[in-house]
Amino acid sequence: MTVLNQDAVNKATLRKTRQCLQKTCTVETLKKRIPIIDWLPKYKTEYFIQDVIAGITVALTAIPQGIAYAVIAGLPPEYGLYASLTAGLVYVFFGSCHNVTVGPTAIVATMTGKYVADYSADFAVLTAFLSGIFIFVMGILNLGFLVEFISMPVISGFTTAAALQIAASQLKAYFGLNGTSGSYFLESIQNFVTHINSAKLWEAVLSSATVIMLVLLKKMGHGCKRTDGFVKQMRWFLSLSRNAIVVIIGMIIAYILKVTLHTEPVLLIGDIGSGLPKFGVPPFSTVVGNQTYNFREMVEVLGVQSAVIPVIAILETIAIAKAFAVGGRIDATQEMIAVGLCNIFGSFGQSMPITGSFTRTALNHVSGVKTPAGGLTNVLILFVALTSLTSAFYYIPKASLAGLIITAMFFMIDYEMFGRLWRNGMKDFVLMLVTMLISLFVGLEYGIIAGIVLEALSLLYYVARPSLEVNRMQYEKGDVMVLTLCENMSYCAAEHLRKKIMDTSAISNNIPIIIDGTSLRRVDYTVTYNLMSIIKDLDETHHILLMNFSVELKKLCLNIDLGLESKFVYAASPKELTEALPKEV
Amino acid sequence: MTVLNQDAVNKATLRKTRQCLQKTCTVETLKKRIPIIDWLPKYKTEYFIQDVIAGITVALTAIPQGIAYAVIAGLPPEYGLYASLTAGLVYVFFGSCHNVTVGPTAIVATMTGKYVADYSADFAVLTAFLSGIFIFVMGILNLGFLVEFISMPVISGFTTAAALQIAASQLKAYFGLNGTSGSYFLESIQNFVTHINSAKLWEAVLSSATVIMLVLLKKMGHGCKRTDGFVKQMRWFLSLSRNAIVVIIGMIIAYILKVTLHTEPVLLIGDIGSGLPKFGVPPFSTVVGNQTYNFREMVEVLGVQSAVIPVIAILETIAIAKAFAVGGRIDATQEMIAVGLCNIFGSFGQSMPITGSFTRTALNHVSGVKTPAGGLTNVLILFVALTSLTSAFYYIPKASLAGLIITAMFFMIDYEMFGRLWRNGMKDFVLMLVTMLISLFVGLEYGIIAGIVLEALSLLYYVARPSLEVNRMQYEKGDVMVLTLCENMSYCAAEHLRKKIMDTSAISNNIPIIIDGTSLRRVDYTVTYNLMSIIKDLDETHHILLMNFSVELKKLCLNIDLGLESKFVYAASPKELTEALPKEV
Repeated sequence: MTVLNQDAVNKATLRKTRQCLQKTCTVETLKKRIPIIDWLPKYKTEYFIQDVIAGITVALTAIPQGIAYAVIAGLPPEYGLYASLTAGLVYVFFGSCHNVTVGPTAIVATMTGKYVADYSADFAVLTAFLSGIFIFVMGILNLGFLVEFISMPVISGFTTAAALQIAASQLKAYFGLNGTSGSYFLESIQNFVTHINSAKLWEAVLSSATVIMLVLLKKMGHGCKRTDGFVKQMRWFLSLSRNAIVVIIGMIIAYILKVTLHTEPVLLIGDIGSGLPKFGVPPFSTVVGNQTYNFREMVEVLGVQSAVIPVIAILETIAIAKAFAVGGRIDATQEMIAVGLCNIFGSFGQSMPITGSFTRTALNHVSGVKTPAGGLTNVLILFVALTSLTSAFYYIPKASLAGLIITAMFFMIDYEMFGRLWRNGMKDFVLMLVTMLISLFVGLEYGIIAGIVLEALSLLYYVARPSLEVNRMQYEKGDVMVLTLCENMSYCAAEHLRKKIMDTSAISNNIPIIIDGTSLRRVDYTVTYNLMSIIKDLDETHHILLMNFSVELKKLCLNIDLGLESKFVYAASPKELTEALPKEV
Repeated sequence: MTVLNQDAVNKATLRKTRQCLQKTCTVETLKKRIPIIDWLPKYKTEYFIQDVIAGITVALTAIPQGIAYAVIAGLPPEYGLYASLTAGLVYVFFGSCHNVTVGPTAIVATMTGKYVADYSADFAVLTAFLSGIFIFVMGILNLGFLVEFISMPVISGFTTAAALQIAASQLKAYFGLNGTSGSYFLESIQNFVTHINSAKLWEAVLSSATVIMLVLLKKMGHGCKRTDGFVKQMRWFLSLSRNAIVVIIGMIIAYILKVTLHTEPVLLIGDIGSGLPKFGVPPFSTVVGNQTYNFREMVEVLGVQSAVIPVIAILETIAIAKAFAVGGRIDATQEMIAVGLCNIFGSFGQSMPITGSFTRTALNHVSGVKTPAGGLTNVLILFVALTSLTSAFYYIPKASLAGLIITAMFFMIDYEMFGRLWRNGMKDFVLMLVTMLISLFVGLEYGIIAGIVLEALSLLYYVARPSLEVNRMQYEKGDVMVLTLCENMSYCAAEHLRKKIMDTSAISNNIPIIIDGTSLRRVDYTVTYNLMSIIKDLDETHHILLMNFSVELKKLCLNIDLGLESKFVYAASPKELTEALPKEV
C-alpha cells in the first residue's frame, strides 16, 4: 500500500517536472523572457515618430542627469553616459515595460560613491557586475516578493535620508567651497560649516539661478500636454527639457565668458573622456595606489553594500514599473532579469550600477512612448554625445549641476507622506524616522536594513499578541464566559492564549467557558498543544467548550489528545449552547 | 491649545512615573522580588518533615547527576557539586516556585564543555557569570516573552539533538574505549567507530547492567506513592533514588574488588577535590598553556554561545516552572531574576552555568516539597558530601556514570512528539528535523538559532499571504463580486492584496466589486495606501465599494485620500448593498 502510494507520488512528480520543463521551453516563455521577440514583429510605423520624440526628450534629461550622477558617485562625468548606453541597449531587448528607462540614479550613485572615493572607479564597475548577477539570480529564483518586506515608511525614511545626503554633498559645488564634498551627511555638513568663508559669489549666483529656473520651468508646464496647441505644446516641451535647458544656458554663459573675456569665473566640469567606453571583462582585480586587490579582496571591500545596492535597484525598478505599467500589472521576474542583464552587460562597458530611473521613466511616459524602441533613440543620442559633444561638455559649470541635483533631491522627498504617517498612528512615523536617522548618521545601507528588521520584529510582536476578546454573556438559560479567538494563532501566541484562558478561568466564578474558534483558519503544533494541555488541566475544575473549530483544526487538536473529543461543539452562537449546559460546575 | 495639551501630557507622564516608582518600592514588590520574606514568616512545622524528605531525595539524585554533568562538561567531578551548592542556596532566597531545583543540566553542560576542552575550567565559570548577568538583565527588562518565539518543534529538535550528542559522547566511557569523547556528535561517533576494537568487556557489562537496573527501578515505582503502605512506599523511594542506588552499587563493587583483589577492572572517577569551592571573584583573566587571556579575549572566545547558553537556561527554567507551578501560573520575571542571581553568585564559588533541572524538580514535586526550604536540605547534604564523602567518590566507576547519562538521555527524547508533528502537517515536522540536523552536525547553538530564524521567516511568509476569499454572489437584484479580507493586513501583504484586487477586477466583467473588511482590525500605512491607490485607479472602470470598514480604519483610509468617502458602506451582508447598486457600470 505504502509502496504503491510512493510509486504514485514518484509518477506525479515526474509528470509535474516534465510539464514544468515543457512550460519553460515554449514560444510563449521565450516571448516573455525576451520581449523584443513579441513586440518587434507587431511594430507599426505610427509608433516610430512617437518613440523618437520620447527618446529625444528622455536623452535631453539623461545626459545632464547622467553627468550629475557620475559626479555624485565621484566618477569621471563620462561614466554617467556609459552607464545609460549599454544598459539602455540591453533593456530594449529584455525589458517588459515599454516606458521604463534604465540608467544611473541618485541613490545608487551615492551608495557607489563611497568605494570610488576610498578606492577607484574599478570598484563601481565591479559593483555593477555583482549587482547584476545578484538581481538576475533573484529574478530567476522568483524572489522579487522579498521586496514586499520593505514597507512604505521604511522606503520613505530611506529615500528622504538619501535625498538629504545627496543634497548636502552638493553644498560644496553649490557655493564653490574648498574641502571635500563628503560621502556621509555629517561629513558634508561639517565641510559646509568649516568652509563657509570660502564661498564664491558667482558659483552661488549661478546655482541659485539654476534652481529658480528649474522651478519656474517645471511650473510653466503645468496643465500643458503634448497634444495641446502650439504655445501650450512649446511650454510642455520646454518644461520637460528643463534639465537640459539650464545646463545648456550655464554652458553658453561659461563659453561666452571664456571666449570673450578669457576668464573662468565658475568651476567647469572640464575635459570629458571622449569616445565610447572600453569594452572588456569587468575589473576582477585592480591596483589602488601601490596595493593590488584580487577578486576576493575587492568583494571584501564591497562588503554588505554589495547586497544592499541590488536590493535597492530591484526596489526602484519594481516600484517604477508598477507606477507606470498599464493597470499596475507587471512581470516583476522579467523586470529583475532585464535589470540584472543590463548591469551585467553594462559592467563589460565600464558602467556604474544602474536601475530604473523615476524621472526619466515619467518623462518617457508623458512623452507618449509606445515601445521599448524609444530607448533606442535615447541610446543613439547618447552615442552621438559621447563621440562628438564631449568637447562642448567641457563648459558645463559644476554649479549648474549642483543646482540641478539639489532641485531634484528637493522634489524626491515626499513631504505629504510625513503628515499622513503622523496622522496614521505613531508606529509608522517612528519607523520612518528611525530609518531616516540611521540612514543619515550611520549609513544608507544600515538604515534600510535596520528599518526592515525593526518592522519585521514589530510585526512578529503583533502576531504574538493576537486579539482575544473575553465577554460575559448573560442568557436566560444561564451565563457563559466567551473567549473569542479573533485572529489566527501562531506558536509565539501560544503563551498569550494560555494566559488569557487562565485569566478567564480565574474570573469565571465556575460558570462555563466557551472558546469561540469561528475565525480560526490556521494554528500550529505549539498552539494546539498548549490549548489542549490547558484544557486538560482545567477540565476538572471548569466546564470548557471549544466552539466552531473547523474539522481540520479539530483533527489537529485530537491528534494531541484523543480524550477531549466531547469538548468540540458547533453552534450558531454561544446562546444555543447554554440550553444544554449545566448551570454550575 | 497645543501648549496646554503638552503641559497635560507632561503632568500625566510625571504622575505615571511617580506611580510607577511607588509601585516599585512597596512591601508587596519586595515580597515578590525576595520571596523568602513572604514564605518564611508563614512557615509551619508540619512543612519541615516534608521539606527534609524531599531535600534528601533530591540530593540522592543531585550528587550523581552533578558529577555526571561535570564529566559531560569535561570538568573535574567536584565542579558539578559546587554548581548545585551556591546556586541552590541563592534560589532558596529568590526562587518564586517552591519545587524548582536549580543546578547543572545536561544540555547546558554539553554547551559549556567545548570551552573546557579547548581552553580551561575558568571559561566555564566565566560563562556562568556572564549568563547570570544576561538572564538577570533579561528578567529586569521583562524580556521573558522572547522565549515565546521558540516553538515546540524547535525545542524538540534541539533537545533531541542534545540528547543524541550527549549520549554519543558517553559511548567512550560506556565501552571503555581509547580516544576522545568528542564535543560534537560526529566526533564522538567517529571515535566510537575507529576505537571499537579497544572496547573492554567489564566496562560494557557494568554500564549495561546500570542501564538495565535504572529501567527496572523506574518501572518498579509505577503506581506507587509516598502515602501508600510500607511496601509500596519502599518501592516508591527506591525508584526515586535509583540514580544514587546504581552509582552506590558500582562504587561498592569497585571498592570490594580493589580491597580484596587489589585490581581495578573498570576505570574509576579517581581523586575528587575535597572541601568547599574557593570563593572569590570569577576569573576575568586566565592563563591557558603559555597564553594569557584578558577579559575581552575570553569573551571573544565564548562568542555566540555566551548569548545562547543563557537563552537555553531561561527556556529550561520557565518551561519547568510552568510545568510544576500550581495551575501553570508563574512569575517568569522573578524566575529569571532568581536564576540570573544563582549564576552570578555561583560564579563566585567556581560554579559552571546552572538552570532549572527537570529531573530534580520533578523529584522534588513528587516527594511533596512544601517550600523552597527543601532546597536547603539538599544544599546541606551537598555540603556534607563535599567535605566528608569525596574519598568515597573515588570509587565511582566511569561506566556507571555513562550508563546513568545514556539512560537519562534516552528518556529525555520525546518520541511521541515526532509522530504528532508528522501527523500535524509537514511544516512543523520539517522544522523539527532541520533544527535537529543543524544542531547535531553543525552545533547546538547554530541549530536553535537556525530553527528560530527559519520559523520566524516562515511566519512572516504566512503573514504576507493572508487569506483573501473571492466569491461571485448571485442575488435577484444583480450579481456582485465579494472579496473578503479574512485576516489582518500588514505591509508585506499589501502587494498580495493589490494583485488579488486586480485579478478580481479582471474577471468581474463589470459587475460591482465589494471588498468586505468586517474581519479587519489592524492595517498599516502601506496597506492603506496601496488599497486607496488601487481603488482610485480602478474607480473609472469599475464600481468598487468598501464594506464594513471600522470607523478607525475608514479614518486612516480617508487620511490618504479624502475623495473616496462615498466608497465606504455598511451593511449586514453584500446582498443588502445590491439593492442600491447599478446593474452594470
